[in-house]
Amino acid sequence: MFEFIVEATCGPARAGRLELPYGTVETPAFMPVGTQGTVRALSPNDLRGVGATLVLANTYHLHVRPGEQIIARLGGLHRFMGWDRPLLTDSGGFQVFSLAGTRRVDEAGVEFQSHVDGSRRTLTPEGATEIQWLLGADVAMALDHVVPGEADRATARDAAERTLRWLDRCAQRHRALATGGPAGGPNGPGADPPGLQTLRPILQGGTHVELRTEGLRQMLELGAWTGLALGGLAVGEPKPVMHEVLAALEPRLPPALPRYLMGVGFPEDLVAAVERGVDLFDCVAPTRHGRNGSAFTADGPLNIRNADYREDPRPLDVSCDCEACTAVSRGYLRHLFVAKELLGLRLLSLHNVRYLIRLTAEMRAAIRRHAFGSWADEWRRRYLPARPR
Amino acid sequence: MFEFIVEATCGPARAGRLELPYGTVETPAFMPVGTQGTVRALSPNDLRGVGATLVLANTYHLHVRPGEQIIARLGGLHRFMGWDRPLLTDSGGFQVFSLAGTRRVDEAGVEFQSHVDGSRRTLTPEGATEIQWLLGADVAMALDHVVPGEADRATARDAAERTLRWLDRCAQRHRALATGGPAGGPNGPGADPPGLQTLRPILQGGTHVELRTEGLRQMLELGAWTGLALGGLAVGEPKPVMHEVLAALEPRLPPALPRYLMGVGFPEDLVAAVERGVDLFDCVAPTRHGRNGSAFTADGPLNIRNADYREDPRPLDVSCDCEACTAVSRGYLRHLFVAKELLGLRLLSLHNVRYLIRLTAEMRAAIRRHAFGSWADEWRRRYLPARPR
Repeated sequence: MFEFIVEATCGPARAGRLELPYGTVETPAFMPVGTQGTVRALSPNDLRGVGATLVLANTYHLHVRPGEQIIARLGGLHRFMGWDRPLLTDSGGFQVFSLAGTRRVDEAGVEFQSHVDGSRRTLTPEGATEIQWLLGADVAMALDHVVPGEADRATARDAAERTLRWLDRCAQRHRALATGGPAGGPNGPGADPPGLQTLRPILQGGTHVELRTEGLRQMLELGAWTGLALGGLAVGEPKPVMHEVLAALEPRLPPALPRYLMGVGFPEDLVAAVERGVDLFDCVAPTRHGRNGSAFTADGPLNIRNADYREDPRPLDVSCDCEACTAVSRGYLRHLFVAKELLGLRLLSLHNVRYLIRLTAEMRAAIRRHAFGSWADEWRRRYLPARPR
Repeated sequence: MFEFIVEATCGPARAGRLELPYGTVETPAFMPVGTQGTVRALSPNDLRGVGATLVLANTYHLHVRPGEQIIARLGGLHRFMGWDRPLLTDSGGFQVFSLAGTRRVDEAGVEFQSHVDGSRRTLTPEGATEIQWLLGADVAMALDHVVPGEADRATARDAAERTLRWLDRCAQRHRALATGGPAGGPNGPGADPPGLQTLRPILQGGTHVELRTEGLRQMLELGAWTGLALGGLAVGEPKPVMHEVLAALEPRLPPALPRYLMGVGFPEDLVAAVERGVDLFDCVAPTRHGRNGSAFTADGPLNIRNADYREDPRPLDVSCDCEACTAVSRGYLRHLFVAKELLGLRLLSLHNVRYLIRLTAEMRAAIRRHAFGSWADEWRRRYLPARPR
């Protein structure tokens, strides 16, 4: 369980297979984000239909509403969401630092104000671990301290070091829960499938490679992890800087651990990150942009609200097999957006998630035939020159 | 084509089969309403999945936006909506009289103000017929003059008589289109399947049985219709009054024509109307109420927002096979509504449409085994006593 097998490589790019309690995930893989326990506008059947194998849910949101106790009493997050494939929960760190109102960080944890009811709450490393244990996802993440993309060295260092100290506390609590956790919840006795969860660390350090390198060294000393995440990237720093950090870190990352780049989800960023050895991604971009009428296509992004599409009989993306692309025309999809119909939000969300999942499948195939570089050149030639149409 | 075969009866209740260009509809049947060319929040796959065979779209809404010309150029309404099964378009009369702003009726037609952009528009019997011809649904409806449910005799008589005069003009124009219609559009040459559409009359007359009886006599003289609709009911009059009108009319309705009761869609109203010989129904209730959190269940309606359901692990309706009822719990559905998630709107809409379609299937089965009365008693014992929970 939690085994990761790299099946093919092409330079730093890897194609692999990740075994989790609820199923197998082929990598590179994109995780749709189920912020509040639902990938916005998409149902479990939709997600299976577009080939999603791993879904992310937000610990912060589910803790605030409806609360992990209710989810545990309803059989855990898999059953709650009606999702019988692998799940990953983030630690809540990113949301606390980006979304909650006033917050105060100290060594104990972070105090924040709920965005739902304004109540004061505290998230500690131990608490974040317990919440995720009750939620019962296949993969839990350790609580991290996230700083903005352009944070100076001292700020980034402080947060990265705190994240490491918190990681140790998360891991201790996770071990305690796994060996003698409370009865009840999806990981309690009699759970089916047997309660199993792995906890994974998040590397911080901003854009400072030497902080990341030192943090990685310490992180690897702290435990025998089944994978690791790169946090604090794609949070405002220029993209070339993110690419430099990824390229500099790649040779130092243990090849046997799956690498999850948090919060990355634009097609061009996925390709650039796989090129630099990343295996897993999550992002709200496909659903959020879909709700704004923006669609990824083989020929680059387009916005379906554009008047050019009013009488366009073509599918949204001729190469796609999703319901939006096979059942109706661009003209109809534009009508749905102009008429403010819910179906438009859903069909474009569905399409964008399908697009990213097909993109990861194409990347896997290109890596397996040892042709990732030429595939990526070809992909960029078609996708990138296009301006929003 | 357009053949209707009554296959079984049980008192006035009938089970039949309606042949339309895009497929067969078993009756009694409920039509989900695709107001703007989409059954709100549901996709073509969803509709097929819940067993919808006939969908209604609103001529008024589609005329105002995006316009019938655009839909015709995009291949007609079936292709526009991605719906390969039978379609019916209403005449626009009900929307003009209930939804548009200031309006002026005269013998020529009705002038109204678009609810979208405030522009002044005119709908004539000929125009309504032409719009529907361009849309290309299997069944078109003649333009009618709708009055409120409690309209006095003089008002109801005036509207009913005008509706009959308009019917004759609609029929003339429809014949002209069918024998030498304009090229292009779904009914033009080369259309696949061959352009075919039937036009059906709507009987008005408010709650005044003698007006309806006389109107029916004149209507049947005006043409060899393939079906007829009862309009101007379920528009504010007390339910017992509607039931009396239906019961009084039933013996006078030609048995060979399918009878469509417009705008009726609550479970108890469907059962009462089938009991009085009605074959077809449409209503926005299942989707509109679904979006408000209200669900039909075997044990009566419930509202999923109710705090009682917060930790309820049961399915919404244990007897239902839709995705809402098979994938997730009431507790999860409540969470979706409390958290304002789009998936909640959709899952309850899906369930309510599925509920009505299963209800019509149950009624068909009860009629075929000549046990509709006892089935209806049993159904009411379970459904009706329940108060909103």
